[in-house]
Amino acid sequence: MTHFKPLLAASAACFAIALTAPAAAQDVPQGVQESEQANFEVHVVAEGLEFPWSIAFLPGGDMLVTEREGRLRVIRGGVLDPEPLAGVPDDLLVERQGGLMEIALDPDFASNRMVWFSYAAGTPQANHTALARARLNAAVTALEDVEVVFRARPDSPRGFHFGGKIDFLPDGTLLLSLGDAGLFRDEAQNLRNHLGTIVRLHRDGSVPDDNPFTGRDDAAAEIYTWGHRNVQGLAVHPETGVAWSHEHGPRGGDEVNILTPGLNYGWPVISYGINYDGSIVTEHTAMEGMEQPAWYWGVSPAVSGMAFYDGDAFPEWRGDLFIGALAGMRVIRFELDGDRLIGTEDLLSDMGMRIRDVRAGPDGFLYLATDDIDGMILRLQSPAE
Amino acid sequence: MTHFKPLLAASAACFAIALTAPAAAQDVPQGVQESEQANFEVHVVAEGLEFPWSIAFLPGGDMLVTEREGRLRVIRGGVLDPEPLAGVPDDLLVERQGGLMEIALDPDFASNRMVWFSYAAGTPQANHTALARARLNAAVTALEDVEVVFRARPDSPRGFHFGGKIDFLPDGTLLLSLGDAGLFRDEAQNLRNHLGTIVRLHRDGSVPDDNPFTGRDDAAAEIYTWGHRNVQGLAVHPETGVAWSHEHGPRGGDEVNILTPGLNYGWPVISYGINYDGSIVTEHTAMEGMEQPAWYWGVSPAVSGMAFYDGDAFPEWRGDLFIGALAGMRVIRFELDGDRLIGTEDLLSDMGMRIRDVRAGPDGFLYLATDDIDGMILRLQSPAE
Repeated sequence: MTHFKPLLAASAACFAIALTAPAAAQDVPQGVQESEQANFEVHVVAEGLEFPWSIAFLPGGDMLVTEREGRLRVIRGGVLDPEPLAGVPDDLLVERQGGLMEIALDPDFASNRMVWFSYAAGTPQANHTALARARLNAAVTALEDVEVVFRARPDSPRGFHFGGKIDFLPDGTLLLSLGDAGLFRDEAQNLRNHLGTIVRLHRDGSVPDDNPFTGRDDAAAEIYTWGHRNVQGLAVHPETGVAWSHEHGPRGGDEVNILTPGLNYGWPVISYGINYDGSIVTEHTAMEGMEQPAWYWGVSPAVSGMAFYDGDAFPEWRGDLFIGALAGMRVIRFELDGDRLIGTEDLLSDMGMRIRDVRAGPDGFLYLATDDIDGMILRLQSPAE
Repeated sequence: MTHFKPLLAASAACFAIALTAPAAAQDVPQGVQESEQANFEVHVVAEGLEFPWSIAFLPGGDMLVTEREGRLRVIRGGVLDPEPLAGVPDDLLVERQGGLMEIALDPDFASNRMVWFSYAAGTPQANHTALARARLNAAVTALEDVEVVFRARPDSPRGFHFGGKIDFLPDGTLLLSLGDAGLFRDEAQNLRNHLGTIVRLHRDGSVPDDNPFTGRDDAAAEIYTWGHRNVQGLAVHPETGVAWSHEHGPRGGDEVNILTPGLNYGWPVISYGINYDGSIVTEHTAMEGMEQPAWYWGVSPAVSGMAFYDGDAFPEWRGDLFIGALAGMRVIRFELDGDRLIGTEDLLSDMGMRIRDVRAGPDGFLYLATDDIDGMILRLQSPAE
């Protein structure tokens, strides 16, 4: 594994906010937390994870967790195994926002034990987002038969905006989000490369014939949607089967999008945000041929992770959308009416923890990964009787 | 004029919030106020108004302002005339939330000098919302030929939830919002009376033939939409010609609705709010045959006043929706994409003033009425060069 400047990688995660002391388990709020619709308690599932990025639930209740620093971990019978799983690819690069990113079970995991993961690959001078699949061994100690299925092109020397979120459409194809790589902002409008897009692939790595740009020689055939900045949330709606995403704006302009194949989501030609230094990205917030977001934030929460909730533990939350916030340090709940976001509530905004991932567990509870050098997996569970 | 318990009326306006010292002109923020999209300055147009409720702009720049305590005032050449206009109806009742409410110019004001206004009428034991029209005399000192065009039925002994907002559809008909009168909550689902509805009338007081319930003997023919709690914001979208409204929920559940004639907006069968005492209004937030809001607030700002902005002074705000907040003490801006609310921002939330009305002036500036015994008219104007 190529492992450059881990300390710099850690501090880069905080570059947009004031440095704060690491969050610790004792900072987790105790007792019943009241919210508008459901009350809950916060339980610490695991701590001591180094920048946990993504959570996947194994049949039977165990969990896989990625650490951005390049390790795949397992929480086994409720206990974090100190030993990482073997088999993470050698070309993994830990650099700024990149490292080991998403972990997702194949839709047919029960029969094929395949998992999918995304990671930053290459060198600090030339890196990209890679998508790989592997077989999880029976003991859950190693990835076997690791195969890289897709590499985003071109390489970037920046180490920013890797995207990396994975989900599966009802037809069994896979979506992978990719960032604009930080440097090549205008490349998000260039259909000839993968920067600033979401790509759609068959699970054998081939490109679906019905992708929107299949057969065109002026566009990459993998592209599903384009004009994205850095998609850090991707989830297929459990009822409609339509993929939703969210992405980071520059300063302001984080947005939620509902994805239609082939459409252009506008970055950097239209945006509700401005540059971090206060300069203008674009004077346009809307333009013909570019999609408006379903929601945008004027003050960026730095959204991360996304889950539709349809569990049984919190009936009041069924049908709602949950999104984490890094700089904004909270969980954001949206009430939905079809594909409209019609109300919003902040949860755990006093906890003071950066939220990297939000997942609805098979037990009906909501799981969070906190973005910290001493990161945690938290569970929002029903209050004890 | 029947004028009961003015001091009680004043304190009743604060019943849902902690009592605060009256806001004063020196509390208005000085200098350039920065916001996400536009910067502005706040200018005090007038002060010393007793609970100003509504603003109307006369040709030439003068303004009419209602005071809930039963007076119609004029700001003439930028100066508040100490003498109220004569001609307010004798049956006006100042009681709790009721008094003189909306003032609106007839769409043909330039040729007919007609104004429309709403007020609480009757006695503390039996009161209702009345709609009247009158001719504004040339000197702007009196209402003449005052005629009551509509009275909501039945009377209520409560003095709450009078509605009272007025606007005009592109076809020249008039919409008037009515509350559920506080006591008869379930009556908002009863089409046979006017409680909890918005009604539509011709400007001669007759009922349009194309109203949704015209000709039905089980419904009041004036009804345009129903199932409302207390509509305190009503504005016709300048581009689509469709009426939008907002209404107060109980504790939580304030909502924005986009009005379709004949439809049921659900109160009190569905609501995102609960009672002030924490008890449940309804377990349902959605039901077949009842409309979902375009937006709802889990924590009620107590929304009041509503304006679509299409002026020239703030190009960044063009197409946006502005809503005032009483208990929430701020101005709420929504970014719109067609009929979707896709982003929101709070303005003047540090000012600490209850906002009763929000209007876009013909000069392109935004005007506010503060809800206070020493109330003000404020203007959000472009910063001085």
